[in-house]
Amino acid sequence: MEQNTPDTNFLYADIVARIANQVKEGLLMPGDKLPSVRALSREQGISVSTAYKAYSELEIMGLVEARPKSGYYVKFTPARFSNPPKTKPPQKKPGQTSVADMIAMVYQNMQEEGVLRLSLAAPPISLIPVAKLSKSMAEAIRKSTSGNIHYENVQGNMALRRQVAKNAFAWGGQFTENDVVTTQGCMEALVFCLKAVAKPGDTVAIESPTYFGIFNIMQSLGLTVLEIPVNAETGIDIEYLQQALQTVPVKACLFVPNFSNPVGSCMPDARKQQLVTLLTALQIPLIEDDIYGDIYFGKSRPRTCKSFDTQGWVMLCSSVSKSLAPGYRVGWCIPGRFKEQVINLKMMHTISSATPTQAAIAHFFETGRYDLHMRNLRHALHTQCLRYMQAVAAYFPAGTRISQPQGGYALWIELNKNVNAYTLYQAALIHNISIAPGQIFSTDARFTNFIRISFGIPFDAAVEEHLKVLGELVRQANA
Amino acid sequence: MEQNTPDTNFLYADIVARIANQVKEGLLMPGDKLPSVRALSREQGISVSTAYKAYSELEIMGLVEARPKSGYYVKFTPARFSNPPKTKPPQKKPGQTSVADMIAMVYQNMQEEGVLRLSLAAPPISLIPVAKLSKSMAEAIRKSTSGNIHYENVQGNMALRRQVAKNAFAWGGQFTENDVVTTQGCMEALVFCLKAVAKPGDTVAIESPTYFGIFNIMQSLGLTVLEIPVNAETGIDIEYLQQALQTVPVKACLFVPNFSNPVGSCMPDARKQQLVTLLTALQIPLIEDDIYGDIYFGKSRPRTCKSFDTQGWVMLCSSVSKSLAPGYRVGWCIPGRFKEQVINLKMMHTISSATPTQAAIAHFFETGRYDLHMRNLRHALHTQCLRYMQAVAAYFPAGTRISQPQGGYALWIELNKNVNAYTLYQAALIHNISIAPGQIFSTDARFTNFIRISFGIPFDAAVEEHLKVLGELVRQANA
Repeated sequence: MEQNTPDTNFLYADIVARIANQVKEGLLMPGDKLPSVRALSREQGISVSTAYKAYSELEIMGLVEARPKSGYYVKFTPARFSNPPKTKPPQKKPGQTSVADMIAMVYQNMQEEGVLRLSLAAPPISLIPVAKLSKSMAEAIRKSTSGNIHYENVQGNMALRRQVAKNAFAWGGQFTENDVVTTQGCMEALVFCLKAVAKPGDTVAIESPTYFGIFNIMQSLGLTVLEIPVNAETGIDIEYLQQALQTVPVKACLFVPNFSNPVGSCMPDARKQQLVTLLTALQIPLIEDDIYGDIYFGKSRPRTCKSFDTQGWVMLCSSVSKSLAPGYRVGWCIPGRFKEQVINLKMMHTISSATPTQAAIAHFFETGRYDLHMRNLRHALHTQCLRYMQAVAAYFPAGTRISQPQGGYALWIELNKNVNAYTLYQAALIHNISIAPGQIFSTDARFTNFIRISFGIPFDAAVEEHLKVLGELVRQANA
Repeated sequence: MEQNTPDTNFLYADIVARIANQVKEGLLMPGDKLPSVRALSREQGISVSTAYKAYSELEIMGLVEARPKSGYYVKFTPARFSNPPKTKPPQKKPGQTSVADMIAMVYQNMQEEGVLRLSLAAPPISLIPVAKLSKSMAEAIRKSTSGNIHYENVQGNMALRRQVAKNAFAWGGQFTENDVVTTQGCMEALVFCLKAVAKPGDTVAIESPTYFGIFNIMQSLGLTVLEIPVNAETGIDIEYLQQALQTVPVKACLFVPNFSNPVGSCMPDARKQQLVTLLTALQIPLIEDDIYGDIYFGKSRPRTCKSFDTQGWVMLCSSVSKSLAPGYRVGWCIPGRFKEQVINLKMMHTISSATPTQAAIAHFFETGRYDLHMRNLRHALHTQCLRYMQAVAAYFPAGTRISQPQGGYALWIELNKNVNAYTLYQAALIHNISIAPGQIFSTDARFTNFIRISFGIPFDAAVEEHLKVLGELVRQANA
């Protein structure tokens, strides 16, 4: 039946070339089963004999082998494994680098293998009850009649919303599942809340110094930032804010009252209440990032601004990314009077959040595993925090100042005025240590002699050795 | 040790009130274990005896019971279950309803229990190998040393990107994992691609009629739309587009070349190539929504515009939401020359996509389960499509015109000019049938006598009966 028209020849050569290329690129790996002759013919709309000819040609080329009664497979070719490991590209030169570029670079280097990530504020896997969480995932899927494949309710998984509302009790909140909207991590919650209350060109007040991801969001949403200083003891400077609000038309505030990042301050209750009263009177929404709220080292869970909110102007955002499973991307917000806008934005942008991950976290909460885990995590992090502080005190030159966080993941370290933190960051990277340079925590390069170090990684001899090296680098930079 | 200062009394009354309220709201359910006296004291920063007094008071109120050697539990209160079932709110009156309002309403009604969702274009659970997919999830978690709790690579899970690149072969694509960026469903892919190439105020060309979710995205991103007619046989009207481009400054096109929604047209290869050539010459990015591409009823997988793209101007977007698991929110894009921008946007908005769901879908692809499943699904959907068409032909009045889709999920039905589809939608809802009225598929209410019916739900006697009722309602509306 086969006719060797030019068209057939072309089809056949094309398929041979494409499969050969997939093998070359490593998309098809030795041992991979190829579609049957019949399937290939159907898939590509060619005749069975053309498909057969293509495989024969690939066999002659040594790329494919036919196994009796089984079909065609990609052949093992020793040459494919002789490539030398890739060399690292050279580090970008210091100099005129924008904050956005620095942030991108710090993020990228974070992902490199073999680097001690003192720049990453997240729980180490060794402190997470991975097996119990996996069990919750298995249970959640088993319990669902659809195996959790269905589109989730737009506002979010009901069981998860119920648990979030219940847990709010610990920080003085009184809510039901109707008040909660789930999101893909805290970051998406912040994005939806910002979009709900501000449009491109508007100004939003933020902390200074602040988490560099905030600058990224603001830039992406076309928002202008107004930086408000943070005091290590009392948090955001309310008096400074109050004055600023008289001259700048601020559309919203985005603050981290509990264990602000990087300073680690925790606003006292009275200050929180004062802030809420001020903003409510001015009808300015407060987006409260409470992602670190559960990671307190003191006796009790600090309250939130949301707990003082009587008129719905506070939009609380949080997630399990810092406490349990960043990779699950499970977050939420309690957006007060802006709930409908947030739900609409969620529907428009993502339809709904993933069902299995939400259901698994809900199950983990329901069984009480979260509370137990958090008791252990808090204890471990507090100890780690003290060990890191000790090491910094021991190995860094005199005159170094360290923050004394009451929770969270970060030490904020002030070095001698002569030290350029970005140069230090690059020097440290050569020694496989990734730190966050102060420059990326403000828009105006105010913190050039500051660095942020996360104490999330369990303190051991290797960490101590790296901190010693870092201290030596600081000493050299001082000179 | 306890001192009955006013402050202590306040704390105690406050905690009693808050717990009582949680019971009332149903956040604490009968049988739920409460924190121990010691834990409550720690959590709330109160003395042990204050905590004890609070529980005693709640016991007296009949809300809580102490179980010997076990602790405090929420008590079973029969009165809590005597509420009558909630009555449905009355339907909103027809009249001046905006497209955005109609869309919101259709979405909301879709979620109601007991309604036959002919408006939802998604696979029914009965056609999905739920157990096998759950197995893939379990395997993916088991294989990961971290149980998939870690932040995923920003560009996306490597195994999933590899599989997406491999599967691209079926539609004429030649890619590696480096070309693919994963997203939270196709919707997020479209949002990132649009944001990468257009800013608020810009104009984007879309199909007409088109999927109503597109209007939502455009509105949310502040984009203006230019509607280009779609031909049932040949897809987007290229000549019309070409003319429009001469006068309107279009920043990007967003089309669904394979099984456009709702028309169901599939652009022939030559037209796809022609479209890509045109847009490449003008350097206008084409965002290609290929979410229905795998659901073809013909002999072979249709090619994509992306397969004709030599210079990276086509950004292909897709997901498994229409083929396998909408609730997993696993999608991707192959953004060509805009890859870096898309990755940056993804990092800013969500940091990364969920790890477990991506890994599970990658595993499902790797094992060949997807191919097998899709053969069955295509066959089932094709049969369902024909049965639905038959029923519409039998029960709808003469003069009704039905699309003849070659793939996808939707029938696009043109009724008598006198029929107002939105009024019909409301009448059908009273009979517990949810359809999508034509009005929500364009911005200018052009399709007032069209409806979209999805044939995703397996055809059975109940569906047939509902279609009969719907036909009768159309007949009444005709009169």
